[in-house]
Amino acid sequence: MKKKVYEFINEDSWFQKFIYTLIILNVLSLILASYKEIFGMYKVFFELFELFSVIVFSIEYVLRLWTADLHFEKGTSFSKRIKFSVSTYGLIDLISILPFYLPLFFPFDLRVLRILRLFRLLRIFKLGRLSKSLQTIMSVLKDSRSELSLTLFVAFILLILSSTLMFYVENDAQPDKFENIGQSLWWSVATLTTVGYGDIYPITPLGKLLSSAIAIIGIGVLALPTGIISSAFINRLEMDKKSEKECECPNCGTKF
Amino acid sequence: MKKKVYEFINEDSWFQKFIYTLIILNVLSLILASYKEIFGMYKVFFELFELFSVIVFSIEYVLRLWTADLHFEKGTSFSKRIKFSVSTYGLIDLISILPFYLPLFFPFDLRVLRILRLFRLLRIFKLGRLSKSLQTIMSVLKDSRSELSLTLFVAFILLILSSTLMFYVENDAQPDKFENIGQSLWWSVATLTTVGYGDIYPITPLGKLLSSAIAIIGIGVLALPTGIISSAFINRLEMDKKSEKECECPNCGTKF
Amino acid sequence: MKKKVYEFINEDSWFQKFIYTLIILNVLSLILASYKEIFGMYKVFFELFELFSVIVFSIEYVLRLWTADLHFEKGTSFSKRIKFSVSTYGLIDLISILPFYLPLFFPFDLRVLRILRLFRLLRIFKLGRLSKSLQTIMSVLKDSRSELSLTLFVAFILLILSSTLMFYVENDAQPDKFENIGQSLWWSVATLTTVGYGDIYPITPLGKLLSSAIAIIGIGVLALPTGIISSAFINRLEMDKKSEKECECPNCGTKF
Amino acid sequence: MKKKVYEFINEDSWFQKFIYTLIILNVLSLILASYKEIFGMYKVFFELFELFSVIVFSIEYVLRLWTADLHFEKGTSFSKRIKFSVSTYGLIDLISILPFYLPLFFPFDLRVLRILRLFRLLRIFKLGRLSKSLQTIMSVLKDSRSELSLTLFVAFILLILSSTLMFYVENDAQPDKFENIGQSLWWSVATLTTVGYGDIYPITPLGKLLSSAIAIIGIGVLALPTGIISSAFINRLEMDKKSEKECECPNCGTKF
Repeated sequence: MKKKVYEFINEDSWFQKFIYTLIILNVLSLILASYKEIFGMYKVFFELFELFSVIVFSIEYVLRLWTADLHFEKGTSFSKRIKFSVSTYGLIDLISILPFYLPLFFPFDLRVLRILRLFRLLRIFKLGRLSKSLQTIMSVLKDSRSELSLTLFVAFILLILSSTLMFYVENDAQPDKFENIGQSLWWSVATLTTVGYGDIYPITPLGKLLSSAIAIIGIGVLALPTGIISSAFINRLEMDKKSEKECECPNCGTKF
Repeated sequence: MKKKVYEFINEDSWFQKFIYTLIILNVLSLILASYKEIFGMYKVFFELFELFSVIVFSIEYVLRLWTADLHFEKGTSFSKRIKFSVSTYGLIDLISILPFYLPLFFPFDLRVLRILRLFRLLRIFKLGRLSKSLQTIMSVLKDSRSELSLTLFVAFILLILSSTLMFYVENDAQPDKFENIGQSLWWSVATLTTVGYGDIYPITPLGKLLSSAIAIIGIGVLALPTGIISSAFINRLEMDKKSEKECECPNCGTKF
Repeated sequence: MKKKVYEFINEDSWFQKFIYTLIILNVLSLILASYKEIFGMYKVFFELFELFSVIVFSIEYVLRLWTADLHFEKGTSFSKRIKFSVSTYGLIDLISILPFYLPLFFPFDLRVLRILRLFRLLRIFKLGRLSKSLQTIMSVLKDSRSELSLTLFVAFILLILSSTLMFYVENDAQPDKFENIGQSLWWSVATLTTVGYGDIYPITPLGKLLSSAIAIIGIGVLALPTGIISSAFINRLEMDKKSEKECECPNCGTKF
Repeated sequence: MKKKVYEFINEDSWFQKFIYTLIILNVLSLILASYKEIFGMYKVFFELFELFSVIVFSIEYVLRLWTADLHFEKGTSFSKRIKFSVSTYGLIDLISILPFYLPLFFPFDLRVLRILRLFRLLRIFKLGRLSKSLQTIMSVLKDSRSELSLTLFVAFILLILSSTLMFYVENDAQPDKFENIGQSLWWSVATLTTVGYGDIYPITPLGKLLSSAIAIIGIGVLALPTGIISSAFINRLEMDKKSEKECECPNCGTKF
């Protein structure tokens, strides 16, 4: 019977579709509840829906914990359950329902409660177990991890350099905007990502000149992560297609 | 005679060029009519031009409906005409002239009339039947449909995550700007697409830090659709070129 | 002697370097003259420099016209000179010195004079004849002309569609900003190129939703020209490198 | 013993990790010291930390100078030390500690002292000697130097052209914003890099039309450096991977 339950929650059944829909509804509910007028009118409904979601997700968690010995190959029945508990999805499953249970056992002040409630947002990552395409993206990101961390490091150095220079150049003219290098870093990020909100920008001729040089040269460097993710992703998609086609040597018929 | 009409409206004749020009003029007229001074002065002209356009497009629609049995291969004469009526271009042809005919039969209030008039904008898609290059682009978009919908889904998750976090972080400091997650989503879109109008942006140190991280990491993810469309398009253009060249094996002369 | 002059002005001599430097100085002078204080103080110098430049460029033009029969292969001596006069560089050479000569023969009002003076800016394109790398870029742009014009056409349709929709959605809420589709087009360009000055943006919920969808979907389409130019350019650079390397068949030694 | 010292400072020892950490802490200290409140409270700490850092970096510099004859292959002991002193890293090592020593020997006014102190920022480049991945990026940038300088030149011409045109178009309507071509250049950079702070933008219809055309066409050209750096970088990463795999001819077993 345990095997049947395991297959039921892991294979493409109506249970998966139900969980999938429930996650989407949870996200929608989180968004709608942020509208004060809506939350005020339908407070009871939001709370009932949260209660229902937690019950479902709790049952799902217990079932997954129970069938964990079928999920992993090696180890004792107990060690497999620990293995599930500390796996990424195991933790996500647990933490995303904790904001409901914790306040029942421990008295929290409002500030902590509010942060706790944010953990419900983790439910969105539960989609990762259900959606195959999300798994692809995550594995692509994992593959290009070393390149990404390298370019993020370079981008970080560039941000530090440009913000420090701009702080020294603009601080005299705009002591309130370029107050410290922290503010200057905010300018650097807005400029190098080309977002440019317009809340902070250089006004001195030297500052504008420096900012122009930083923008033209720096955008290329900050574009690297974008390029790497894009190319890694496209590469993966092409590899999936290629694996179907094979080249046949015209001489001896060997495939290569 | 029906065959002659069918060829006349579907082959590269002066009729196609006339329809093509008329569509462009319709778009121009729609733009010019939005200028109140211009519309006030030439109101009669705009209405006469609309009348003329609707007559031409109506004749075109009737002719296409009449010759539909030459356009499709299978089915009875009647089923072919139904087939045309519910095809994409058949619907575009019909809906883009409806705003003229409907008010003659049904009394609408002004609000509905205004929305109805927007359907005239669909005439721009009639260009798709005439321009071969537009057909290429649409088929490219169709080819990379699955990749596009996947990345749009990921972008959507990213937008939800970042906007919910920013709402919790900035709501206290800017209750009027980050009023609800809807407002926060507007900020997310403006930031992750790097448009950055500057009407809404974080002001707290934590908000700026979070926003910086979101901008640097997230832009890469939202750039994926761009990369996919670009690569799909360039791929298509290269394939068109390659199809002309063939590699000859240097050993046995076999082409492969 | 004519052949010597032809080689002198077309080969890598001090004359070319002199012309190159003079063009750069002309651009700098144009920029500096736009500063009222600087122009007021050194007005005589700017006019003397312009006089000197026009004399040099005029001599260059006369020499090129004189040696045009050595530049082209076919045709009579006279037809070759006409050929040069109507060539791109021949026209640039002529038009960029015309703002000096025309007012001597025809009385112009100030408005026309000012536009005429702008033609001096064309001198910057004279660099194209001297710099080999600029020629490469121009030929790359020529190669991908058809793809570029196609995507520009698609971008144009997208701009029209989005601006018309936004005009109908935002016109009631912001009659002064989204006054007509012209204003709305300005918003579309600022949004789809992700410049986002922040002088015009949607404020209604429907407008923000529509704008978000347009931004996310549309940026991909408008990024196409970028992608095409980039790929064409990189392709050219790679082809230049490849032409040196050749693959040798491991079986029979034939190169392919 | 000299050899042991040389190996100690150049091989993967705790000394390298210590220097690495010290550089990061120096950057953090520079950022924190820009916060007036923090600097006011912990002034003594910042000065002691700077003293400590300078002592360590000075010892490192002396050791590197002393062991320079083991680092280079050719030349006399003295010429090798000169070679190190004028090498990039030798100069960075020296200049980044100079702001401490120079004021001890020469009396400087405050303005010069402030600029001198900026040289401490150069310490961040000392990371380049320690981090292999930073060396990769720098060599990639060196490889595509010619393409980069070419596209920067083209971007420069585009900036000049667009800013001069916009100056003539917008100067009458906004004499304070588009005051001179310098201001206009600032607009060009903000527009073509798509940063768009919103402090300066066209308001006349002609200016908006011109600006739209410049934005759509120009962004492609300014995106070239980005594309080149990206492709060069990805190319390098792929080459590193490829060097491990080799193709075997299916016929005769020859690798190629």
